[in-house]
Amino acid sequence: MDTLIKNALVVTMDEENRVIKNAYIGIEGGKIVHLGQEKPPLPAQRDIDAAGKVVLPGLINAHTHLPMTLLRGYADDYNLQTWLNEYIFPAESKMDGRCVYWASLVGVAEAIASGTTSVSDMYDYCDEIAQGVAQAGMKANIARGMTVFKPDFDFKTFPAAIETVQLAEKWNGFDSGRIKTEVSIHAEYTSYPGVWRQLADYAQSSGLGMHVHLSETKSEHDECVARYGITPAQAFAREGVFKVRTQAAHCVHVTDEDMELLRENGVSAVHNPISNLKLSSGVARVPELLRRGVNVALGTDSAASNNSLDLFEEIKCAATLHKTASADPSAVPALEALKLATINGARAQGRENECGMLKTGMDADLIFVDFDKPHLFPCHNVLSNLAYSARGSDVTLTMVRGSILYKNGEFLTIDIERIRREIAEYAMPVMFGNSAQTLI
Amino acid sequence: MDTLIKNALVVTMDEENRVIKNAYIGIEGGKIVHLGQEKPPLPAQRDIDAAGKVVLPGLINAHTHLPMTLLRGYADDYNLQTWLNEYIFPAESKMDGRCVYWASLVGVAEAIASGTTSVSDMYDYCDEIAQGVAQAGMKANIARGMTVFKPDFDFKTFPAAIETVQLAEKWNGFDSGRIKTEVSIHAEYTSYPGVWRQLADYAQSSGLGMHVHLSETKSEHDECVARYGITPAQAFAREGVFKVRTQAAHCVHVTDEDMELLRENGVSAVHNPISNLKLSSGVARVPELLRRGVNVALGTDSAASNNSLDLFEEIKCAATLHKTASADPSAVPALEALKLATINGARAQGRENECGMLKTGMDADLIFVDFDKPHLFPCHNVLSNLAYSARGSDVTLTMVRGSILYKNGEFLTIDIERIRREIAEYAMPVMFGNSAQTLI
Repeated sequence: MDTLIKNALVVTMDEENRVIKNAYIGIEGGKIVHLGQEKPPLPAQRDIDAAGKVVLPGLINAHTHLPMTLLRGYADDYNLQTWLNEYIFPAESKMDGRCVYWASLVGVAEAIASGTTSVSDMYDYCDEIAQGVAQAGMKANIARGMTVFKPDFDFKTFPAAIETVQLAEKWNGFDSGRIKTEVSIHAEYTSYPGVWRQLADYAQSSGLGMHVHLSETKSEHDECVARYGITPAQAFAREGVFKVRTQAAHCVHVTDEDMELLRENGVSAVHNPISNLKLSSGVARVPELLRRGVNVALGTDSAASNNSLDLFEEIKCAATLHKTASADPSAVPALEALKLATINGARAQGRENECGMLKTGMDADLIFVDFDKPHLFPCHNVLSNLAYSARGSDVTLTMVRGSILYKNGEFLTIDIERIRREIAEYAMPVMFGNSAQTLI
Repeated sequence: MDTLIKNALVVTMDEENRVIKNAYIGIEGGKIVHLGQEKPPLPAQRDIDAAGKVVLPGLINAHTHLPMTLLRGYADDYNLQTWLNEYIFPAESKMDGRCVYWASLVGVAEAIASGTTSVSDMYDYCDEIAQGVAQAGMKANIARGMTVFKPDFDFKTFPAAIETVQLAEKWNGFDSGRIKTEVSIHAEYTSYPGVWRQLADYAQSSGLGMHVHLSETKSEHDECVARYGITPAQAFAREGVFKVRTQAAHCVHVTDEDMELLRENGVSAVHNPISNLKLSSGVARVPELLRRGVNVALGTDSAASNNSLDLFEEIKCAATLHKTASADPSAVPALEALKLATINGARAQGRENECGMLKTGMDADLIFVDFDKPHLFPCHNVLSNLAYSARGSDVTLTMVRGSILYKNGEFLTIDIERIRREIAEYAMPVMFGNSAQTLI
């Protein structure tokens, strides 16, 4: 056995929602080979003491745009059109692959340090994103977000489609599936049915998943209805988009019929409550999605619209917001909120057989949360304290497949000082000019 | 000069909203005697290097119930009546002064560690709360929350009224006003007009402020209208409650007319967004309150309904929630959200001449926020990063009147191990029986 974690309070998030005190977790070849209160018969090469820590599955961020960490706090408190047209799009137009590589690593660092072990990313320069994730040791589903405004789309010649194919050829299945690549229709309003059909066919024939934005704002939803007479979800379904595993980010304005369509097709709705609030997009009807049996995962969206990549914030927001939004103080209880960020995220990513819960046979993707803090004391109910009181900064260890990526404030796979230097000396001047403020 | 803070990026929150880089803050006798980029001519007894830190006024939590930290996570995800009647009230009935003293210190520890320098507390056993706050070195406005269900209320003989008077005699003005005591009508629905009149008269004649719950839930608001034909705010105003400085917690369901009444009377509305969401109470119309000129402060409410006492969470919630609730993505921008937790809180507490902003002549109530973290990088706009990306755990130093209460994870005025032990060995068994889980 490579590693033995001892004295753990394990929140398994498994089918029986087991919480196991004084547990041992044995790890071999990156997988959990032992989990329970009995000590394994043989010693391990490395022991890790988890006394005072709660151990739970690594969190899964099922919708983000890692490179947009560069735009964190760059343009807040504007309306959506001003935000996009005067700030975000002009800045993004100056972004190159080198900017993306280092910016992604800022996002990866923030994610790892707050307990995230896997992300679903949609952006440009995906090769660079994959390189960053590969080095950092975390898991990722990576998709080239595709927008097509020309009417004569041909999958074989369109640059972003070619990139999607190259991305898949180079990175899909990397390190035994630690990285997956996906296909991404950015959104209904940024392309058209002929595009969706070709992308869906490619995804299906290549065995890839799909990542889309769906009914994020009321106007995009209503304009689709005006354009096609059907909702974005219905329009995607009609072109066969949902015949592959799909992560549909936001789903704020989906109808009851859309929800049925998502459920029937096994589409995961990825809830991004903080981004939706901040961009004035609205509140997704998560309790109703859950009641109907839709798999709901959790995402942070980007650091430009959040402005954090901390899933603990998202868990608390989901667990509190819907109690008022649905006028039901029992809506999205602690366990459910934690599921959104663990096993439901794993399902959204097509990783439910490898992570999202802790039990033997699963990858050792797990985190330690330090409960020796005034804000986590007392502990009547570990699930409540995790959902309502824990912060990303309480994470003291982040492990993927048995490898420690982060421990007690130290990054073990990435050079955070180098990242900061590259951002300050290269990316910020390129994107924002030499007067850009990067460090205080 | 006692203390000189160097290399600070100071967010003053003053009238000009100055943000000063590379600043010096000189402190003498607990007050700021120098603030600016020029170095003071004379050296100080103690230098503090603030390189990499943002220095801002200590945060002010204008509505909480410190002793309820004991109930953190004890009964989440229930409806209000079940929560109160089956869990909170039975547990509280077993609470004694010793429980309150140590529980308050858990809350104080959490508050100090997340950058709070002053709280407005409403609870029972206020002498014990005051002892804890006095020892910890923070500021507090403390009020005995009063409920009166008997029809023959006499201020002179009613136990909680006697306690209110004793509290004022012993603690109001303690340590040159570090502690103030206030009068508290718990809420409209937990007493009646004859009580309010006597309490308001006592507050006025004694120069004390007032702390009430106001229109927290729709049912309490509507029932008041059914009972008296006027709203809770109007009912309080009619009995003269607002003739003294008043903190009105929640104000979720106040009408436009109520808002005018609050503004005219200088009543502070204390916004508790996370507690309101979690208890399914609704969303206070904060942009409208601000537009009308009402002073809006920020509170966490108790750890039983939040479940944190971290004002950074509250700032982010206020800054994001109202963008969707008011359908305006520019609502409650970063600077405004930070004001809620600083100068507006000081006004609510009647401390606007002593704290809530950093400038010469004010008390040195300030905090350091460590910006050397991936989640605070880059820093295009320090106000945005503070409001949307900083966490309570980024606070590395908390100072009240020039005295350091907390630094780099260490509490300098309270014994956190002793507090934990007393809670585990005394308070938890008293309140929850010997099987209570206190430590993981």
